[in-house]
Amino acid sequence: MKLVCTQQDLSNNLSLVSRAVPSRPTHPVLANVKLEAIAHEPLGERSEIEPGDDNGSVRLTGFDLSLGIQSSFSAQVEAEGILTLPAKLLNDIVSKLPSGDLTLESNDNEDLVTITSGSGRYQVRGMSAEEFPELPLIDDGEAKQLPAKALIDGLKGSLVACSQDETKQILTGVYLKVKSDCLEFAATDGHRLSIVEVERGDNEESTDPIAVLFEVTVPAKALRELEKMLSSRQERDCLALHLEQGQVVFDWKNQKLTTRTLEGKYPDYRLLIPRQFQRQVTLDRKQLLGALEIVAVLADQSNLVKFSIDSEHQSLSLSAEAQERGSGEESLTAQISGENLDIAFNVKYLMDGLKTLTSQEITINLNGPLEPVILSPLGGIKMTYLVMPVQLRK
Amino acid sequence: MKLVCTQQDLSNNLSLVSRAVPSRPTHPVLANVKLEAIAHEPLGERSEIEPGDDNGSVRLTGFDLSLGIQSSFSAQVEAEGILTLPAKLLNDIVSKLPSGDLTLESNDNEDLVTITSGSGRYQVRGMSAEEFPELPLIDDGEAKQLPAKALIDGLKGSLVACSQDETKQILTGVYLKVKSDCLEFAATDGHRLSIVEVERGDNEESTDPIAVLFEVTVPAKALRELEKMLSSRQERDCLALHLEQGQVVFDWKNQKLTTRTLEGKYPDYRLLIPRQFQRQVTLDRKQLLGALEIVAVLADQSNLVKFSIDSEHQSLSLSAEAQERGSGEESLTAQISGENLDIAFNVKYLMDGLKTLTSQEITINLNGPLEPVILSPLGGIKMTYLVMPVQLRK
Repeated sequence: MKLVCTQQDLSNNLSLVSRAVPSRPTHPVLANVKLEAIAHEPLGERSEIEPGDDNGSVRLTGFDLSLGIQSSFSAQVEAEGILTLPAKLLNDIVSKLPSGDLTLESNDNEDLVTITSGSGRYQVRGMSAEEFPELPLIDDGEAKQLPAKALIDGLKGSLVACSQDETKQILTGVYLKVKSDCLEFAATDGHRLSIVEVERGDNEESTDPIAVLFEVTVPAKALRELEKMLSSRQERDCLALHLEQGQVVFDWKNQKLTTRTLEGKYPDYRLLIPRQFQRQVTLDRKQLLGALEIVAVLADQSNLVKFSIDSEHQSLSLSAEAQERGSGEESLTAQISGENLDIAFNVKYLMDGLKTLTSQEITINLNGPLEPVILSPLGGIKMTYLVMPVQLRK
Repeated sequence: MKLVCTQQDLSNNLSLVSRAVPSRPTHPVLANVKLEAIAHEPLGERSEIEPGDDNGSVRLTGFDLSLGIQSSFSAQVEAEGILTLPAKLLNDIVSKLPSGDLTLESNDNEDLVTITSGSGRYQVRGMSAEEFPELPLIDDGEAKQLPAKALIDGLKGSLVACSQDETKQILTGVYLKVKSDCLEFAATDGHRLSIVEVERGDNEESTDPIAVLFEVTVPAKALRELEKMLSSRQERDCLALHLEQGQVVFDWKNQKLTTRTLEGKYPDYRLLIPRQFQRQVTLDRKQLLGALEIVAVLADQSNLVKFSIDSEHQSLSLSAEAQERGSGEESLTAQISGENLDIAFNVKYLMDGLKTLTSQEITINLNGPLEPVILSPLGGIKMTYLVMPVQLRK
């Protein structure tokens, strides 16, 4: 293998695929990235390759057996080849090299690569690519097209509510329902539930606008990487989503993300949402979030914040007590309908929801002090954030 | 106690003195800051205090029995008082409050303070100030005046070489020699030594310009805080330095830093510096530092980087080997006098020195492969950074 590429291309793509490289690999080769040098035209047809005149590409792959990320960029390929190199060491070297062209050349065994920069020369020992497992890429031709923007919005709003507890299986993922006209994302950890609905923008596939084309539950870990990849590039195009038993692939431009799916039936979360509400509070989201952030300082051990809704004064007061250390209270004006109510929440779950909602004002819909509460934005994306109250000690 | 001050003043000064509050206090009251509300004119002489018309000041103190920081700011004092409050809790609350005026009012026992902001009300339980130890402030009237800039430069250049090993006693500090015309800072951990000499700018006190007025060894921990405090405010004025048996006080504007000194005789470091050198290498500092940072990636376990000085080609090559994982080499052009030499260093000690030197070009003076090496800047501050080489394996 021999190729010339820019330091920036190699570094950016390496750090991207490294996100799928496990920190504690179950097999040594999984600590490596696979590097493939591919010529797009028969080598030898041109007498000499000019700088900047890329005739091929480099494809990098990281894979932890569940999550796989693949990314390609153009390069001058002088000799094709395929090998694997330790992800962290390679990343550490390449990210520190100055910008400019790098030459990568392997020995005959394809297990030692020499990297040459302007003033430096580095040798990195790898492993044969034969040991590296193949990415489970699906090519069924039946891909669903999803706008990147819709995917970003849906993931931002739902990932926050996933369970962090690995024993909770299906709750560690986001449930994604692809309908012909929209995408629905849902996640819950048993304490709060987030549902986001975004338009697909292209209801080409069905005459029935609410037909469910398919549904799948995808691990939050993979979706967090997908969200980062899409957000950092301000991706505006469509992604292709391929689905097969136990596996999904997101595929766009020169990048692919593949992940196993979570098995089992996702809980019927729509049943949790009350049909009607006795009380409604509308107020500024950032003001509420700011007040909660200070009051939360006093809620250090219990995480408990009390809401006192005062309909006569159209005011909402938040309070918390740190035993023997102090107490805090903030009062906010709000538009309130319904009777007065005292109700308590785990402040973390509330703040998570408020950070995820993007509108300037939000509405809080409530019934009694122990019944589910719904936060939703006023305008913007259609989102439902349900949080269970906590019983107040007498 | 009752006072009104701005959130910004209270927050800034709290976070400053909190640096002297121990994370694991030996006595509960040391986890607190002392707060004194002082009226500068007899209270009651004015019928009413107008906003912005400060008639007094607030003095905050943090003290871990070795390092003490005191800072004052102006405020409207309606009732004088003195008490202590938990530093972390108070800091967490005040830093999150919106900007604007805050009212602090204590109960009769001076152990509960109510903080009122625009929309919030917080109560924090404290402890009586009687239990809080007095700062050992010296008022001997014989203070030395030190320009802040000279102190910042001296600390920046020397602190890096202090020992981190608490059992090494006097080596955990910076040795400061105040001469009538200059300040000399020295620090060593046994592997490297840094000496910085800066002009005092005002040799008022002696007709003998090199007379040593006094010498003292100050714990690095306290000096790191001093350097941060001075650097962040881009302090340009003079500090007063008070010295007494076992204690120093740095005193400027509305702030004071006090610390115990380190006992014992500081090693006679001048003896370590070779009188003459057989080889000299002059090169660009940032280029050398950049090259070392990449090569260091390959020196992961041993920290060993080899320098090969090639006089014929006027080039310096740096190399490192990571056993079975790879190797790296960078070549730099340099002005070299003297014969060729292979010599090895702990890359961390070299990089520390190179980051501390501030000139564009530096000179490396060397003798044999096991003799001390001196790095010094070309122009700017007078600094000597000595590093011991490491024996190369055959």
